[in-house]
Amino acid sequence: MTETPNAATLLISCPDRKGLVAAVTDFLYKNNGNILQLDQHVDAEESAFFMRVEWDLQNFAIPRAEINAKFGEVAAPFQMTWQLHFSTTIPRMAIFVSKQPHCLYEILSRYHEWRVEIPLVISNHADLQGIAHRFGVNFHHFPITKDDKPQVEAAQLDLLAKHRIDLVILARYMQIVSPEFIGHYPQRIINIHHSFLPAFIGAKPYHSAHARGVKLIGATSHYVTAELDAGPIIEQDVVRVDHRDTVDEMIRKGKDVEKLVLARAIRHHLLNQVLVYGNKTVIFG
Amino acid sequence: MTETPNAATLLISCPDRKGLVAAVTDFLYKNNGNILQLDQHVDAEESAFFMRVEWDLQNFAIPRAEINAKFGEVAAPFQMTWQLHFSTTIPRMAIFVSKQPHCLYEILSRYHEWRVEIPLVISNHADLQGIAHRFGVNFHHFPITKDDKPQVEAAQLDLLAKHRIDLVILARYMQIVSPEFIGHYPQRIINIHHSFLPAFIGAKPYHSAHARGVKLIGATSHYVTAELDAGPIIEQDVVRVDHRDTVDEMIRKGKDVEKLVLARAIRHHLLNQVLVYGNKTVIFG
Amino acid sequence: MTETPNAATLLISCPDRKGLVAAVTDFLYKNNGNILQLDQHVDAEESAFFMRVEWDLQNFAIPRAEINAKFGEVAAPFQMTWQLHFSTTIPRMAIFVSKQPHCLYEILSRYHEWRVEIPLVISNHADLQGIAHRFGVNFHHFPITKDDKPQVEAAQLDLLAKHRIDLVILARYMQIVSPEFIGHYPQRIINIHHSFLPAFIGAKPYHSAHARGVKLIGATSHYVTAELDAGPIIEQDVVRVDHRDTVDEMIRKGKDVEKLVLARAIRHHLLNQVLVYGNKTVIFG
Amino acid sequence: MTETPNAATLLISCPDRKGLVAAVTDFLYKNNGNILQLDQHVDAEESAFFMRVEWDLQNFAIPRAEINAKFGEVAAPFQMTWQLHFSTTIPRMAIFVSKQPHCLYEILSRYHEWRVEIPLVISNHADLQGIAHRFGVNFHHFPITKDDKPQVEAAQLDLLAKHRIDLVILARYMQIVSPEFIGHYPQRIINIHHSFLPAFIGAKPYHSAHARGVKLIGATSHYVTAELDAGPIIEQDVVRVDHRDTVDEMIRKGKDVEKLVLARAIRHHLLNQVLVYGNKTVIFG
Repeated sequence: MTETPNAATLLISCPDRKGLVAAVTDFLYKNNGNILQLDQHVDAEESAFFMRVEWDLQNFAIPRAEINAKFGEVAAPFQMTWQLHFSTTIPRMAIFVSKQPHCLYEILSRYHEWRVEIPLVISNHADLQGIAHRFGVNFHHFPITKDDKPQVEAAQLDLLAKHRIDLVILARYMQIVSPEFIGHYPQRIINIHHSFLPAFIGAKPYHSAHARGVKLIGATSHYVTAELDAGPIIEQDVVRVDHRDTVDEMIRKGKDVEKLVLARAIRHHLLNQVLVYGNKTVIFG
Repeated sequence: MTETPNAATLLISCPDRKGLVAAVTDFLYKNNGNILQLDQHVDAEESAFFMRVEWDLQNFAIPRAEINAKFGEVAAPFQMTWQLHFSTTIPRMAIFVSKQPHCLYEILSRYHEWRVEIPLVISNHADLQGIAHRFGVNFHHFPITKDDKPQVEAAQLDLLAKHRIDLVILARYMQIVSPEFIGHYPQRIINIHHSFLPAFIGAKPYHSAHARGVKLIGATSHYVTAELDAGPIIEQDVVRVDHRDTVDEMIRKGKDVEKLVLARAIRHHLLNQVLVYGNKTVIFG
Repeated sequence: MTETPNAATLLISCPDRKGLVAAVTDFLYKNNGNILQLDQHVDAEESAFFMRVEWDLQNFAIPRAEINAKFGEVAAPFQMTWQLHFSTTIPRMAIFVSKQPHCLYEILSRYHEWRVEIPLVISNHADLQGIAHRFGVNFHHFPITKDDKPQVEAAQLDLLAKHRIDLVILARYMQIVSPEFIGHYPQRIINIHHSFLPAFIGAKPYHSAHARGVKLIGATSHYVTAELDAGPIIEQDVVRVDHRDTVDEMIRKGKDVEKLVLARAIRHHLLNQVLVYGNKTVIFG
Repeated sequence: MTETPNAATLLISCPDRKGLVAAVTDFLYKNNGNILQLDQHVDAEESAFFMRVEWDLQNFAIPRAEINAKFGEVAAPFQMTWQLHFSTTIPRMAIFVSKQPHCLYEILSRYHEWRVEIPLVISNHADLQGIAHRFGVNFHHFPITKDDKPQVEAAQLDLLAKHRIDLVILARYMQIVSPEFIGHYPQRIINIHHSFLPAFIGAKPYHSAHARGVKLIGATSHYVTAELDAGPIIEQDVVRVDHRDTVDEMIRKGKDVEKLVLARAIRHHLLNQVLVYGNKTVIFG
């Protein structure tokens, strides 16, 4: 899973049938591509095929700009849909926050581990401006009221476009993003929800968890879709609690799970390990 | 936590105020009772006090039959409610099953570890009769239809009464027990639900979990109350799943969690470590 | 991961080079084999390639008896070593136990889930005879002293041979098996060690764990090799302990981990998901 | 477990005998101290008694300066040793680092959650100076060679004394601290070791773990004693790895465990929840 300086990755989906793996690996072999990682998954119930293959571009016979076209010839008879990613293309990520710093700290203190650029942090509150600046990242404060949300979102979208943002992270943003906004970044907005979904959808999940007397609390990172807290789940984890844990203690323990679950989800996305189908994810890696 | 041959346990609840621990420990000390284990919990929000204290009865100045009365004098000014248990009293437990054997096997293969007697297994299907007999436990087959449920439950209750049953375990019984039935065993019916409650209440939780694309599945053991899958939770745990896990795989992985979660819940109950308040549990130990 | 009635599995190792996956998948495709599962792993450091591929034999062009020879033509130029398994061949497994029943119970109560036959249980003590008989499995009592170990092992080997045993499980056998014995079942003896190896090798690991004051205890299932507790690890897991846990409590909690870890290891082996290389394992699945 | 603005905590050890809890709770009750949290533990094997009690100082009859003396009268007949802590006294903590930033980031980004001051970071390398400064913490660079270690440690001790440091954190410091140094901070130096001790003591534990083929890797936070990696363990945790994880992947995954385990250990210490006895810890909380 260590990253090679010059690799390409194909993420492929199509109806399942014989010869799919052979077709793809043959294509790579004949063009002198050395496979670094190959994962394949068949959903027998849906008769759907999924594949991720990563290969070394060094000595690969097809120039980068032509791979899509050439692979299209392989893909067509199988009705494959695919994404092609190059390890040398660095994605650009914006972080949306509100008042809580733990997820922001986690991302900023580890993003040197990832192949990503973070041109800006956006927030509806000014509280975390100091942290962003401390890490040399621009901070944009967009206060939101019930009345001006559409205008604010439009301004945010302008800013994201100007910065050529590929991926939006809602790092405890605490605002519901409109379907219009989501439509600009399909499967490219990752949220962290502070519960083990689908338990405790919506606001104040730790209060609900405390009231229900659960023995584990959790966090869920998912792609944002128009339906609240219902998008494809990328990663989840839990931590044990007991009767001694007040709501405040649950919030404290939950933060550690939230920040790690979000970091793992971002990493999967950045390594092109995530394939969304229906409302679910295949995570290769 | 090893069990002493001759110990007593008090489980105490009352409104919180000063001097509660001192009053109880003083009572034991003055009567020559050596404390083996003491746990105490204050729910600050509810201003409620909970305590579990276990002490050696050897050399204890008060005869067993008089402890309740004598402790009543300590308890009265604090409005304490309490349960008194003796380690030498062996509880009697009935197991309700349906067709799946894993929880039944788990209980029967480990109950020599517990201080409990299991006079009978009850089922709405005959499938597991052989297993019960293999372990030398009586098996009673009560087929149930929509129409005769009240009569069947009445017959089951008769049988339980005849066998002086203290505790009922629903070990994947797959039947909803009526409020009348539950009323005979308040906080003495333990169920294992095959999901991480409150997610996936009701039937076929693994199918729902698979459809939602969760990355962890779980199991919940709880006291049965009139509201379905909503009683006080005793124990929960989870196991990781991924896109490769079909519903059948989830069911298979889930079984390991179910049986261990149920076994832990039963053990807590048998060791008198559980205090129910409202719809929650305090688990001491 | 659900099992198909009529499938074949190839487990392949060889030096890494281009075209390996393509060669294998091409072979299957051209012979009308539908791939059910394909996993591949490259150890870049060792420049070693590993692959597991499972395909449907229905409509496969090559008769079962000829697959090995035909695949040999594909394998030769790549210096592949391989194992070929058929899902219709049921392995035969012997269980070695001593006095503790939990692992034996676990195996016997779940082996209907596996494709395996268990013709016999062998023990150096008579304690668990009743359990084996309860499950309808033959029990052979081989008392062992320091002086007669070679003769006893020879007799055990005779019995295993007579029963055409493929796999030996040391389910808390508590005896060190000789290198001669091991030589008869290379990579086919699975042990469960009651610690998180390599911590606490040898006897009484829970006592050592308690003395060291660890906060987690574990269990390790591994193939047995001539060096004590040092063979290739198949599966490990842990459980949390704290200062309240006596040695006896650790033993009790540890049992739950031991039996599940052993069960998972056996399952991996039976599904032909394990490839041993050097002193390590690749677990596909 | 939420902290009260004005509370006191007693950590008590003594030989076990009757009346210990009664004596302490009586003392508090008679002096109008409301118990906020009481935990007690008996090590039956060692016949040792341990207790942590936290009470509200508001309305407590004894002035803070006299509590030690007054409690001494209670403690003497029982041969109690004890520590008395006030929630209003803020401990002062120094962090020793080397080149890896993850533990430093974790501490600096969360220490607003803790009652602690961090006057300085000390390192044998200059790499992390920017991070310390970013968080407004002084950074002191002490290069160390084999020859000047005693002088460097003496200078470090001077600096610690000057800053009235109570607690030293070795946050992946990668240097062995001398017994002389340790003697100045008995049970007040906390290290994070990047393995599940006692497995893989010493340098390069992830390399050893990879070579051994373990299926879980871990981290251990412990008090530093003269014997390397052998001090009383405060906290441990693990994370799953498999054959796909290279040494570099293990290092990456391990960092997440290391930083959380260290943060939990520091928190336990700062909340006065840790009692050391022999080479083990009692963790109340």
